Amino acid sequence: MTETLQIQPWDRLAQLIAAGDDEEVRTLLGQLPSGDVGRTLSRLTEENRTALLLLLGPEAYASLIEPLSGAQTRQLIEELSAEQAAAIVEELPSAEQADVLGDLATEEAAAILHHMPAAEAETTRQLLQYPPDSGGGLMITEYLSYGAESTVGDVVEDMIRNRERYYDYDVQYCYITGPGGRLAGVLRLRDLLMVRHSQPVSSVMRPPLSIDVAAALDEMKHFFDDHPFVGAPVTDRDGVLLGVVRRSSVVEALGEKATEVFLAVSGLIREDELRTMPVLKRARRRLSWLSLNILLNVLAASVIAFYQDTLAAVIALAVFLPIISDMSGCSGNQAVAVSIRELTLGLVRPYEFLRVVGKEGAVGLLNGLVLGLLLGTAAVLWKGNIFLGLVVGTALMFNTLVAVVLGGLIPLALRAAKQDPALASGPILTTVTDMVGFFLVLSFASVMLGLLV
Amino acid sequence: MTETLQIQPWDRLAQLIAAGDDEEVRTLLGQLPSGDVGRTLSRLTEENRTALLLLLGPEAYASLIEPLSGAQTRQLIEELSAEQAAAIVEELPSAEQADVLGDLATEEAAAILHHMPAAEAETTRQLLQYPPDSGGGLMITEYLSYGAESTVGDVVEDMIRNRERYYDYDVQYCYITGPGGRLAGVLRLRDLLMVRHSQPVSSVMRPPLSIDVAAALDEMKHFFDDHPFVGAPVTDRDGVLLGVVRRSSVVEALGEKATEVFLAVSGLIREDELRTMPVLKRARRRLSWLSLNILLNVLAASVIAFYQDTLAAVIALAVFLPIISDMSGCSGNQAVAVSIRELTLGLVRPYEFLRVVGKEGAVGLLNGLVLGLLLGTAAVLWKGNIFLGLVVGTALMFNTLVAVVLGGLIPLALRAAKQDPALASGPILTTVTDMVGFFLVLSFASVMLGLLV
Repeated sequence: MTETLQIQPWDRLAQLIAAGDDEEVRTLLGQLPSGDVGRTLSRLTEENRTALLLLLGPEAYASLIEPLSGAQTRQLIEELSAEQAAAIVEELPSAEQADVLGDLATEEAAAILHHMPAAEAETTRQLLQYPPDSGGGLMITEYLSYGAESTVGDVVEDMIRNRERYYDYDVQYCYITGPGGRLAGVLRLRDLLMVRHSQPVSSVMRPPLSIDVAAALDEMKHFFDDHPFVGAPVTDRDGVLLGVVRRSSVVEALGEKATEVFLAVSGLIREDELRTMPVLKRARRRLSWLSLNILLNVLAASVIAFYQDTLAAVIALAVFLPIISDMSGCSGNQAVAVSIRELTLGLVRPYEFLRVVGKEGAVGLLNGLVLGLLLGTAAVLWKGNIFLGLVVGTALMFNTLVAVVLGGLIPLALRAAKQDPALASGPILTTVTDMVGFFLVLSFASVMLGLLV
Repeated sequence: MTETLQIQPWDRLAQLIAAGDDEEVRTLLGQLPSGDVGRTLSRLTEENRTALLLLLGPEAYASLIEPLSGAQTRQLIEELSAEQAAAIVEELPSAEQADVLGDLATEEAAAILHHMPAAEAETTRQLLQYPPDSGGGLMITEYLSYGAESTVGDVVEDMIRNRERYYDYDVQYCYITGPGGRLAGVLRLRDLLMVRHSQPVSSVMRPPLSIDVAAALDEMKHFFDDHPFVGAPVTDRDGVLLGVVRRSSVVEALGEKATEVFLAVSGLIREDELRTMPVLKRARRRLSWLSLNILLNVLAASVIAFYQDTLAAVIALAVFLPIISDMSGCSGNQAVAVSIRELTLGLVRPYEFLRVVGKEGAVGLLNGLVLGLLLGTAAVLWKGNIFLGLVVGTALMFNTLVAVVLGGLIPLALRAAKQDPALASGPILTTVTDMVGFFLVLSFASVMLGLLV
């Protein structure tokens, strides 16, 4: 509660922006814990953010928004004119330029590129052609390379001359190129310490290990698992040096995949939603997934409609239908998560159906027995009719088995069909298990109708 | 299908192990794509894995299992004797030693430490005392440090002398310590290139930026957001140098958090489940969450039991109950995911309830209107009774609003109460929205009973 009595940093910032006090604005932003920058920026009005950009200049504004999440950076760039956006994008490292522009609509990105210096725009255009999580998509183009004819002294001199400019790169390696820009070797900085300056670099460099520009995220992960490097050169099919992929970029891309999976299983498709986005946009995005779901739900519930007479005769069954639907969903989703996890870790391949059936069948049977027994007992205790317990308990037992086995299989099938398991597994699973579950309860009940009423 | 006709690598490996052909085993493992190592190892029998360890020796076996996921590494270590395990753990980098042992039961870890060389065991014991995602928990203790009295020449000589041993560290910085091991400065390797060897390191070192041993993951993220370093020294309260945290370790820990969130919302609590674990263990773990859920489900369904007479009069309502339950769960879980995401990004604080109510209320109202209209129309088309449509449509509309607002709030409330939002939000949400949803449909229907039959 004390928090609401204090003046919030964004309110204070808005006052300072209105007063045009750029000194104080800088001081305030400097004092803000870096974890608060994103929230503070997001709570300013759009006008105030634009005023802030004018006050700070594009370089300082760029370094302010660079650490923010992709979704927030995109949002902040989108609200600017193409010219303003270009001035900021220019200040970002090459890989992030491509990230930000790749997230925008094509025309918007083109407009921003149009306002950037021609050479830089060209580099970024080329980076934009690589798939986001490929070697080319993750690489940075800020690196040091020297011709094979250079001497150690040339390299050291260049580094001394440009120490300020290289500071931000946090240089770890120098790359040595031969004819046509082909990667010829790698020098660790520490190798340079141990040799005479008159030696040619070609005599001290190591043979290069490189990542292909088309390498998939998995391959890069394995590369860095196998080698202790903090970065690796990226080459094209001809061995020409194109950029550098850092270990941390690969690890970060893998982490982002995990976040995407979480958002997708929660029914948030495509990109991140932030609450600073317009209401209509947020509502529409969520609705695209919900409206598909309601159709599937109506389809599943049609099984109940088919058995209305049974239900009318034993109205108590209506109490158990949502329970069976929800519990089968829960059991099945656990198996979905294990399959998605094992697919990610490479512990199961999409065609290994039989293995999953065996492994999930055993768990599904055990947990079906326990849950069926629990629900059956609850039914008997409530209505004093042992047959009611038998019907709902048996139905839940079989449906748990079905849900767990299907939950294990669906992600494999979707992956085999080149679809995203995180997005579609849930809706497919719950529709099928609802239908089967409703059918099991109501058909069992129909058969035993005389014993239930 | 062709895959099943070929001999699988684990079958071939088992044959070679049985033949005791360590040359061929090494060749086969070397040819295996590194992404396949985990799967291949997991498909061997336990006996064959132990035989493989004896064949390869602990060092090679350690480097084989080091890149695998935490859950799999733990499983592979658990099946060994404490002595065998110690020989392998010894070969891992210090931070991973602590990771692996921290995941084991306390007695098991103690038994393994008992078989390790005293000095190394002591280091690992100390690392084990730090919380897993703190500065101390993520740091490695393999780094280069020199006394402030050293000269540049001393440092360079040491690096040349130990080049083989330092190779695996991929050294980027040297740390300079003063009295009592206090961190006095940092040297980038490239700084060493630019100075005479007779100079004392104290004259060329930079003032150190360091991470506190108790720093939280968030703080370390912000540190590396603010600075372009690939690693940073970790110090205790007195400024004594304890280790080094690498940027990639911080990024990796953040990615693992995202995976944990995904597994938790899917109802897999605590640790990773792999299908190579024993069936009973897997079933029991999943059941702990499911049995809580079935209780909550029965609680929610008791609302239906209360309205049995209404339901008996308008049996068509039974078709809509599972739909309303499931759809409200879907809508609410989207809001849960957005809240968890915004909490992670620091875009919302746990006490900002009003903000979330406003932002989610708008979306909930819009989507409630659309979904209510859809379901209401479906009901009218099916039964030709406009009042039935009104009842189920209005109930879904209001319940969507409730679910979306609650879904947004629950993670904030759990975070404020220091609970894990990923684990508990789903069950709490669906229980409440089921109860409210069932109540809305059935109480509306009770009021309009005359118009529905």
